[in-house]
Amino acid sequence: MPSDIKAAFYRGNQTFSVEHRSAVPPRQGEVSVRIAYCGICGTDMHVFHGHMDGRVGANRIIGHEMSGIVEAVGNGVADIRCGQRVVVRPLDHCRNCPACAAGHNHICHNLKFLGLDTDGAMQEVWNVPKHTIHQLPDGLSMKHAALIEPVAVACHDVRISELRRDEFAVVVGAGPIGMLVAMTARNAGAQVLISEVNPHRLEIANKLDFATIDPTGEDLAKKVNACTGGRGADVVFEVSGTQAGVDAMTAVAAARARIVMVAIHAEKPTVDLFRFFWRELKLSGARVYEPEDYERAIKIVANGGIDADAIITDIHPLSAIQAAFESLDSNPTSMKSLIRIGANE
Amino acid sequence: MPSDIKAAFYRGNQTFSVEHRSAVPPRQGEVSVRIAYCGICGTDMHVFHGHMDGRVGANRIIGHEMSGIVEAVGNGVADIRCGQRVVVRPLDHCRNCPACAAGHNHICHNLKFLGLDTDGAMQEVWNVPKHTIHQLPDGLSMKHAALIEPVAVACHDVRISELRRDEFAVVVGAGPIGMLVAMTARNAGAQVLISEVNPHRLEIANKLDFATIDPTGEDLAKKVNACTGGRGADVVFEVSGTQAGVDAMTAVAAARARIVMVAIHAEKPTVDLFRFFWRELKLSGARVYEPEDYERAIKIVANGGIDADAIITDIHPLSAIQAAFESLDSNPTSMKSLIRIGANE
Repeated sequence: MPSDIKAAFYRGNQTFSVEHRSAVPPRQGEVSVRIAYCGICGTDMHVFHGHMDGRVGANRIIGHEMSGIVEAVGNGVADIRCGQRVVVRPLDHCRNCPACAAGHNHICHNLKFLGLDTDGAMQEVWNVPKHTIHQLPDGLSMKHAALIEPVAVACHDVRISELRRDEFAVVVGAGPIGMLVAMTARNAGAQVLISEVNPHRLEIANKLDFATIDPTGEDLAKKVNACTGGRGADVVFEVSGTQAGVDAMTAVAAARARIVMVAIHAEKPTVDLFRFFWRELKLSGARVYEPEDYERAIKIVANGGIDADAIITDIHPLSAIQAAFESLDSNPTSMKSLIRIGANE
Repeated sequence: MPSDIKAAFYRGNQTFSVEHRSAVPPRQGEVSVRIAYCGICGTDMHVFHGHMDGRVGANRIIGHEMSGIVEAVGNGVADIRCGQRVVVRPLDHCRNCPACAAGHNHICHNLKFLGLDTDGAMQEVWNVPKHTIHQLPDGLSMKHAALIEPVAVACHDVRISELRRDEFAVVVGAGPIGMLVAMTARNAGAQVLISEVNPHRLEIANKLDFATIDPTGEDLAKKVNACTGGRGADVVFEVSGTQAGVDAMTAVAAARARIVMVAIHAEKPTVDLFRFFWRELKLSGARVYEPEDYERAIKIVANGGIDADAIITDIHPLSAIQAAFESLDSNPTSMKSLIRIGANE
C-alpha cells in the first residue's frame, strides 16, 4: 500500500484540483482498488456545473465509471484477492428502509451513491465496500471495462422494458446513455430507431449503422408507423429529458407498448395520459442497476456486444481532469471521456 | 319475436325520446337479448350532456350496462339457447388492425363500442354479435347482473395492477367505477384506502367500511406513509381524472409501486416523472375489459363479493329515462342508476 496517492478534488466553482493525499488502508469489509480508468458521467458534469454543490460539498473526490485492480483487502473479505481485475457497482444501501426490506436495494430510500455521497474513483486508490465489487473476465481491457457502469444502466433499462427479439424499439435521445441503450437493445435482437436532434450525435449513430431520425425535420410517429405497419413501437426509451421527448414517447407507442423513463426530468412535463388509457401503455421508471445488470454488462462488453471504441471519444490523464471537463462542454462530438489514472495499457 | 318494441332514442340536446320501433330478427351470428335492466354509465352521461354528439348522432339507442334473457338466435349460433340469462360484453373488434393481430382485441384500433358506435341496450330487445355474450349462473338476479359491465372494468383494473393479497392500495376518486375498484381490490385481499373529496361519496365509502380520507382536509401522502410504515402504497388506482389525483398517485407510491390509469384525462396533466425514475414506479393504462374480466366479474357479483345493493341507488322505468338522466346531474347521493326495461323481478 503506497502511503501517498494522487486524487482530484472537486473544489466548487467549476474547479478540480489534483492533490496528494495519504492512502488509507481498507477497513473491515472494504476493498482497495487501484483505479485504471474513470469515465466522466453526465452526473459528474452536473457536479462540475455546480448543480450538486449541496450534495457533494467542496472537498469531494467524484467519479464512479471505473475499472481497476484490487490492491488490498480489509478484514472479513474472504473471496476477493489482490491483483483481481474489477469494477465497482457504486451503490451502498441502508438495509433498514422499506425499499431494502422489499429487496429493492438499488432504490433504497437512503441510498449512498459512491463518488457523490462518499469519495469516488478519480484517485489512484479507492476503498469500497466488498459487496460493490464485480470481477472481470480475462481479456477485457481496463479501458473498455470503464464503460461497464453506464452499460449496466442500459442493461437495467432494457431488462425493465421486457424487450423481446425482433421487437421495434425507439430510443429518444442519443447521448452516451441513449446510445448505450440503443446498442444494448440491438444486442438483444430488437430493431432500433434513434431519435436525436444533435447532428453530431446523429452522425455517430449513423456510423454505428442505426436507423435514425431528426424529429425536428421529419414526423417521428409517422416514420415509426411506416416502419411497423401502423403498429407503433413496442418499446420506447425516453432518454432526452425534454417535453418533446415525453410527447414523442406516447405518440409512437403501440397498443400495450412499454415505455421506460431513463431520463431525469427535473421539471414536471405534461403527459398524454389519455393515450396511456386508450392504448393501455405502460411506463416504468428505471434507476441505476442491480447486480444482475452489472453481470450482464460485463458479458456484453467482454463479448464486444457494445462498440466501446465508438463510445470512448477522448482519454485524458488525471493531471488534465480540469481540461477534460471543460472540453466536454465545448466539444459537441465528444461522447464518452475517460480519465486515465493508473493504467499502463 | 314481437314485431314492435319500445326503445329510448337519444335525440340530442339533452333529450331522450321513448318510441316504438320494429323488432329486427337476429342476423347470421347474432343473438337477440330481451333486456331486463340497463345501468347508466358515466359515458352515457357524457352523451346526455352533448359531448359525444359527433360520435353517436341524434338517432342512437345508447346503453351497455345490461342484463337480459336470450330471446332468439340467428343462423350460425350453436351454443347459445333461448331463455338463457346473459350479459353482453359490448365490444366489437375489427380483426385486422395491429392491436387485434397482437391479441389485444379490446383495444382494437377500430373498436366499435356497442351502445355508442352502434345501437345499445336502452330498448326491449337488443341484437348483438354472439361473441359478446356471457352466460350467467343461476341465482344471480337480473338487477345485480346489470352491474357486471362496470365490475368487469374494475376487475380489469385490478388484474392490470397485479395486486397481491395484503398489499396496500389507494383508490383516488370514488365515483361508481372507483367504488367498484375499491370493492374488487378488497375482495382480492388488499388493504384499501379511498381518497375522495365529495362528502356524499365519502359517506357511502365509510358505510361500506372502507378507510377513507378527504385529501383537501388531510395530507394523503402522510396518511399513506403512516399506514404503511413509511413504505407507501403498493398499488394506486387513479380514477379521479384530476391534476390533484395525478399529483397524488406519484406522491403516495412505494418503491416499484404499480399505478393504474383508470380515469380518462381529456387534458394532459403534468406528471412527476422524476418520481417515476427515483422510485421505479410503473404506470399502466387500463381500458375496458377482456373476456376473462367478464368471467371474473360474473363470479364476484354472483358470490356477493361486491355490495351491489349499496352501489345501485336508483331504479327507474324506461318511460322515465329522461328524468333518470336529469336526476343524476342533480342528486349528489346517486351512485348507480338502473333503467328497468323488461324485468319482472
